[in-house]
Amino acid sequence: MTHLRDMLSNFLGDRLITAETARIAYTQSEGHHPGELPALVAQPVSIEEVCQLVRAASAQGVPVVGYGAGTSLEGNAAALTSDTLVIDFSRMNEIVEIASEDFLAVVQPGVTREQLNEQLRATGLFFPVDPGANATIGGMIATRASGTTTVRYGNMRDNLLALKVVSATGELIRTGTRARKSAAGYDLTHLFAGSEGTLGLIVEATLRLHGQPEQIVSASWDFANVKGAVDTVIQTIQSGVAIARMELLDTSAMMACNRQSHLGLPECPTLFLEFHGSGPAIAEQLEIVRMLGDANGGGTLRSATASEERNALWKARHHLLWASRSMIPEAQAWITDICVPISRLAEAISRAQTMIEESGLFAPILGHVGDGNFHVFFILHPDDKLSWQKASVINDAMVDHALSVGGTCTGEHGIGLGKRDALLRENGAAAVEVMRQLKQALDPQGVFNPGKIFAA
Amino acid sequence: MTHLRDMLSNFLGDRLITAETARIAYTQSEGHHPGELPALVAQPVSIEEVCQLVRAASAQGVPVVGYGAGTSLEGNAAALTSDTLVIDFSRMNEIVEIASEDFLAVVQPGVTREQLNEQLRATGLFFPVDPGANATIGGMIATRASGTTTVRYGNMRDNLLALKVVSATGELIRTGTRARKSAAGYDLTHLFAGSEGTLGLIVEATLRLHGQPEQIVSASWDFANVKGAVDTVIQTIQSGVAIARMELLDTSAMMACNRQSHLGLPECPTLFLEFHGSGPAIAEQLEIVRMLGDANGGGTLRSATASEERNALWKARHHLLWASRSMIPEAQAWITDICVPISRLAEAISRAQTMIEESGLFAPILGHVGDGNFHVFFILHPDDKLSWQKASVINDAMVDHALSVGGTCTGEHGIGLGKRDALLRENGAAAVEVMRQLKQALDPQGVFNPGKIFAA
Repeated sequence: MTHLRDMLSNFLGDRLITAETARIAYTQSEGHHPGELPALVAQPVSIEEVCQLVRAASAQGVPVVGYGAGTSLEGNAAALTSDTLVIDFSRMNEIVEIASEDFLAVVQPGVTREQLNEQLRATGLFFPVDPGANATIGGMIATRASGTTTVRYGNMRDNLLALKVVSATGELIRTGTRARKSAAGYDLTHLFAGSEGTLGLIVEATLRLHGQPEQIVSASWDFANVKGAVDTVIQTIQSGVAIARMELLDTSAMMACNRQSHLGLPECPTLFLEFHGSGPAIAEQLEIVRMLGDANGGGTLRSATASEERNALWKARHHLLWASRSMIPEAQAWITDICVPISRLAEAISRAQTMIEESGLFAPILGHVGDGNFHVFFILHPDDKLSWQKASVINDAMVDHALSVGGTCTGEHGIGLGKRDALLRENGAAAVEVMRQLKQALDPQGVFNPGKIFAA
Repeated sequence: MTHLRDMLSNFLGDRLITAETARIAYTQSEGHHPGELPALVAQPVSIEEVCQLVRAASAQGVPVVGYGAGTSLEGNAAALTSDTLVIDFSRMNEIVEIASEDFLAVVQPGVTREQLNEQLRATGLFFPVDPGANATIGGMIATRASGTTTVRYGNMRDNLLALKVVSATGELIRTGTRARKSAAGYDLTHLFAGSEGTLGLIVEATLRLHGQPEQIVSASWDFANVKGAVDTVIQTIQSGVAIARMELLDTSAMMACNRQSHLGLPECPTLFLEFHGSGPAIAEQLEIVRMLGDANGGGTLRSATASEERNALWKARHHLLWASRSMIPEAQAWITDICVPISRLAEAISRAQTMIEESGLFAPILGHVGDGNFHVFFILHPDDKLSWQKASVINDAMVDHALSVGGTCTGEHGIGLGKRDALLRENGAAAVEVMRQLKQALDPQGVFNPGKIFAA
């Protein structure tokens, strides 16, 4: 390690972080899986530096973990051993190119989604994928993130055209092109997307952009019970309405939301909606959704067109993790994530709800329900072992139920450390063995993010 | 081979084809790459039979090539050696399940897209991907096909949720789920999609379906020159109109079309369009497109709402290959395929057009121009060596230009035999080496479709 440190220090200077006080930040994420203290943290500024870092670490068998904004939830970027080299991409945060005429942008991995959209504002375009947190684009690709707008605009997979990736031998690999589609060889772009830094490090990405909608209407809508809200979601999706956002917050989530963000909304199951399009198109969609919701016990549909009002709603939604945490002093959050076929959403949520009620835990339910995807935020005091056990049992049962109805153990958070067993249950030993073979082929030494997705 | 033949004959009976007269059909495709006469052709009826076939062939080092409808264009399913076992999926053509409430269908690989849509008609749903030919779903996945409706509904990648695949060791692998999205592990589904049967054999697929549009309007629209038509396409895409189909046919293509299908349309560059949606939405889209086309020298926009008229138009479009071939007695077709970012489409087509004119070849230009994707149909007499050479030069120049503007050497036909060098130029040696490593990992003996995508 000393040799590696001296070597890297030579070319990175103070962009090699060695002080323990500074390295501690990299043991934390928004998830509940703490990492080990990494030996070294490097902050490269160029692709060539990343190649050099990987070659140096690889030569000495030092594990390499890529790091974005630290917003992952399943320990995806946690160091598992104290000899780890973390590569922090925060200084590779340039927007390389915006090609408006082709609806695409080329970005470095440390660019955050808010930064990108800020830059895009004047172009009439936007990048839709919104996982809530202000994650980096590199991290969002690595975990195949999605979020509030996926129901209309797709997830990271759908909005990704090309990558530059540094391989385990420190070579630069180019995948994909700027064309809208391609049938040229194996789809390496979408193999690296979602591989959680275990096959290569993403050092540049070409993203699809979308035209800013002519008009945007947001709305919140309270329901007598979760079933009414969820049935409205299911019927909206089945009716083919191209709704832009469709989020559920249960009573606990609304309580936390009101307390933190002072929304003053009824504390009952609520849908947060958004409509994009021309005035007449939005009116048509609103009418259909209103009719469906009214028949399912919907209360007052509060719509907002002014951007301040809309932003207040989505800001409250995005702050929900902190809002929920603040309900129990010194609490931590364990956020789980399943996704089911839309027809099975009501039963999946209802089962989770019943288990939470029976457990006595404070655990708001919320999610991107238009995708069949929802989360439970278990809010737990670190010392309350029994509550952590209860959360674990509910989490397992939720995953098992999702799998039993043809769903997935994670819609958007990835496998990381927390869902490795679930992945085996989801696709079976033969498929996971294929994944191991791919890992072995591209990273035979196991340098990249060892122990993630499957045990090292 | 004798041993393998006897063994397979035992369990397949007359579904093992050994007669030369019957095997000859498998040396042909709609492309210009003839295959070798395969030693054996098997027609399994179940996944278990496919597993057995692969295990038997694998044990004896016999190459295995999957075969669908024989509509591929780059030699993707051609046997390269006479000891090949072809697995013909035509008897695995059952629609296993249609789950309307979740907008998905589960199908065997030998189901054709027309067969699937026929079955879906009464459900109010449809499967959008339409490459023109009545290809099998298995073949369409294997080549990552797209086609006329991709501009609105996406390609095979976008409409594929899950697969069952038989590995080189004859094991069954399950990938993906019925959930709309997933972040669970490596995206094996989309690694097998587009791998052209070189990594595994697709034996079942779960597909996304879409709601049948409330209304459909088709249209043909003649232009004074190709530039006017293409500029209309570019501006339509850039204006964000969610058009369902946007096809270009140049003057040669229209001549062939008229002669074969008696459309009686003007013989000049023409757009074939289709609009899906509610009446008002279509009217709005038509108005925007009409305005753009009028400013670019558009002639008469002939729209058709009656299904007979619409079908006549698309039938003519789909018969264009045979129509073009029939323009030169005994001719063969060499169909090439590039895709560029939309802003570079005009120059890509104009360059192709100039080269074709200078060459004196009969070579209609047409394509899914809304995606930036177009084809040249070189119509060549088999004995006219000079013309084949000229086609080869133009093909190379088209690919090189596409790559120089950030495009791809194939939007939808795949690499097969014909584009192996182009793939190297497109993504570079390092990326192709990664593909080889994946191949080596999943098929170390090189049993599956050897010599495709890259040389064996």
